[in-house]
Amino acid sequence: MSSEPLLLTPGPLTTSSSVKQAMLHDYGSRDEKFILLSEQVCQSLLQLVNADSTYQCVPLQGSGTFAVEAMLASLIPANGKLLNLVNGAYGKRINEICNYLNRETVVLEFAENMPIDTGAVADILSSDPTISHVSLVYCETTSGIINPVKEIAQIVREHDKQLLLDAMSAFGALPIDVEEMPCTAIAASSNKCLQGVPGVGFVIVEEQALSNSEANSHSLSLDLYAQWQGLQKNGQWRFTPPVQVLLGLQQALQELTDEGGPTARLQRYQENASILVNGMCELGFTPYLAEDVQAPIIITFLMPTAEQFVFSDFYHKLQQHGYVIYPGKLTEVNSFRIGCIGHLTPTQMQKFIDVVSEVLTEMDVSFS
Amino acid sequence: MSSEPLLLTPGPLTTSSSVKQAMLHDYGSRDEKFILLSEQVCQSLLQLVNADSTYQCVPLQGSGTFAVEAMLASLIPANGKLLNLVNGAYGKRINEICNYLNRETVVLEFAENMPIDTGAVADILSSDPTISHVSLVYCETTSGIINPVKEIAQIVREHDKQLLLDAMSAFGALPIDVEEMPCTAIAASSNKCLQGVPGVGFVIVEEQALSNSEANSHSLSLDLYAQWQGLQKNGQWRFTPPVQVLLGLQQALQELTDEGGPTARLQRYQENASILVNGMCELGFTPYLAEDVQAPIIITFLMPTAEQFVFSDFYHKLQQHGYVIYPGKLTEVNSFRIGCIGHLTPTQMQKFIDVVSEVLTEMDVSFS
Repeated sequence: MSSEPLLLTPGPLTTSSSVKQAMLHDYGSRDEKFILLSEQVCQSLLQLVNADSTYQCVPLQGSGTFAVEAMLASLIPANGKLLNLVNGAYGKRINEICNYLNRETVVLEFAENMPIDTGAVADILSSDPTISHVSLVYCETTSGIINPVKEIAQIVREHDKQLLLDAMSAFGALPIDVEEMPCTAIAASSNKCLQGVPGVGFVIVEEQALSNSEANSHSLSLDLYAQWQGLQKNGQWRFTPPVQVLLGLQQALQELTDEGGPTARLQRYQENASILVNGMCELGFTPYLAEDVQAPIIITFLMPTAEQFVFSDFYHKLQQHGYVIYPGKLTEVNSFRIGCIGHLTPTQMQKFIDVVSEVLTEMDVSFS
Repeated sequence: MSSEPLLLTPGPLTTSSSVKQAMLHDYGSRDEKFILLSEQVCQSLLQLVNADSTYQCVPLQGSGTFAVEAMLASLIPANGKLLNLVNGAYGKRINEICNYLNRETVVLEFAENMPIDTGAVADILSSDPTISHVSLVYCETTSGIINPVKEIAQIVREHDKQLLLDAMSAFGALPIDVEEMPCTAIAASSNKCLQGVPGVGFVIVEEQALSNSEANSHSLSLDLYAQWQGLQKNGQWRFTPPVQVLLGLQQALQELTDEGGPTARLQRYQENASILVNGMCELGFTPYLAEDVQAPIIITFLMPTAEQFVFSDFYHKLQQHGYVIYPGKLTEVNSFRIGCIGHLTPTQMQKFIDVVSEVLTEMDVSFS
């Protein structure tokens, strides 16, 4: 393949040429040009979730996990108590972070193919008034399952608790409207449904909660309050920002608007997912999740038991044809994953299915 | 100006077109291609400081400060005691990090225009055997002062303590050889003398110290030990790496080799610095530091007291001519700074001096 391979992964994913081209500049990070860029990016991110002036967007260097850790550490005070809702590896990662933070945590865990049960959330919140915060992963990239965020957000608000949402592989495509889905904070990153390159995360957070968060953080680098205060003072990041990544994100946000916003993007992802799932099923693969809980972000397929199907061969043959899928599993069941997000059209997805078919023939695999 | 402005800043700085062009690709972060890239970058970084197999290079997402915080948190155990050598804002930042970390810290502080006194370091280490680690900033970008790292490294090793070096604006140009300059760990980043784009840092660390650092870190994201273990397991970063930034860094490292390595780069920076200092002095400016302690990285000039010299006018006029200098001061004395690192030739530096001269005429400033 002379052209670039397509990434069918949960991120880093395939970005447009224009997003990458936008990075071909050097900006002084304390110069007005960059300050303006940074402000515009934050304003666009706030608008995407219908956040008014009671919310702030605090960008943070690093991967999405850095933003999630900053959100948890900065917003849960030392005497707080977190209810962590788990149905996959990213929910478990929040447990791991809370172990580092020494924050008291109650875990409500479900199987990886089951969405979080809203009734169970309401029960726990009713029975344990000492819980102050609730954390939830919108779309668990472990399996690709979508959680009932809107319902859980309502329940959390009714109980007067604070919801901290990990919206990493949702932001920019799956619906998020803080008016309808009350959240204290939402963490996400540049390089999933926003289709920027990786290197920066952000937390959208209620200003009131942010104002109360001084001195909560365990870390200078990950201190959201201090990061916010630095930006408030003079628009400058405290520490060197990844300027080229921000330039890419600004272009990616423009392209999201040009596409028609998150609704249009979701529709494209749904078409991609539908072609992928139907095509793979016709070839004999079986999706792990039930259709009604499957997000059109990443699809988990059960590992075929046919003797001729050696996954590493399958992976490398697809790679030779110009497609990079996810090389490993995160679920407890034996499975593999294919992403349907990024700068990727339904036509390209259809071509991919044709290639899978070819590769299975090359491998002499037959599922029937 | 239709062409790109030149950044005369301590970073982000002007990178070559080829470094930026190297970012025009999407890589799957768990794919072999990226694993190989990541390994090659780490190997090159180790070679630059003459580190043998007793050292490891652990890359980390984020700015240089993230790497410094990770180094301090991961390598100083909870019962450790740090001697922090301070003569500028970056040394003070290490104090601030240690406050977050609750690590016991003794501070030995000098004026911003005085290098760290080696005799005083030896005295403290002799008188306080409970000190376990020493931290030092190689080149304090606050003023541009260079510290006597080699001498201090020897003293620290003689006292059987561990040196943690912040080599942020030194790595890639100022001499670092772990054989001659024994360090337990060295933190630096992609975007200063290495001339990559910002977005990734790294810590070069003795494997023995790293092996002993399990469970020291306060933070999942900044846990060097866990980051190392993740990379050891399968070559993959634990959390999404900034793949394009790494691509840029790989190209930047190749260009460092092509230039003739750190020695040749230092020579260019010295020429740049010399043209800058001499030119500015001829125009009537006064450098803050004595010549013998000035690193050829960034030069601090005292703020002229002439009434016609309004710094913001000076800054913006230079900007209109295509030069971005550093917009503010970090020193306690009233001053401003101009960087001489990055993809920047002596000829360009001479042109800059000519422009400063023009701008002073435009501003009707006369220092005599």
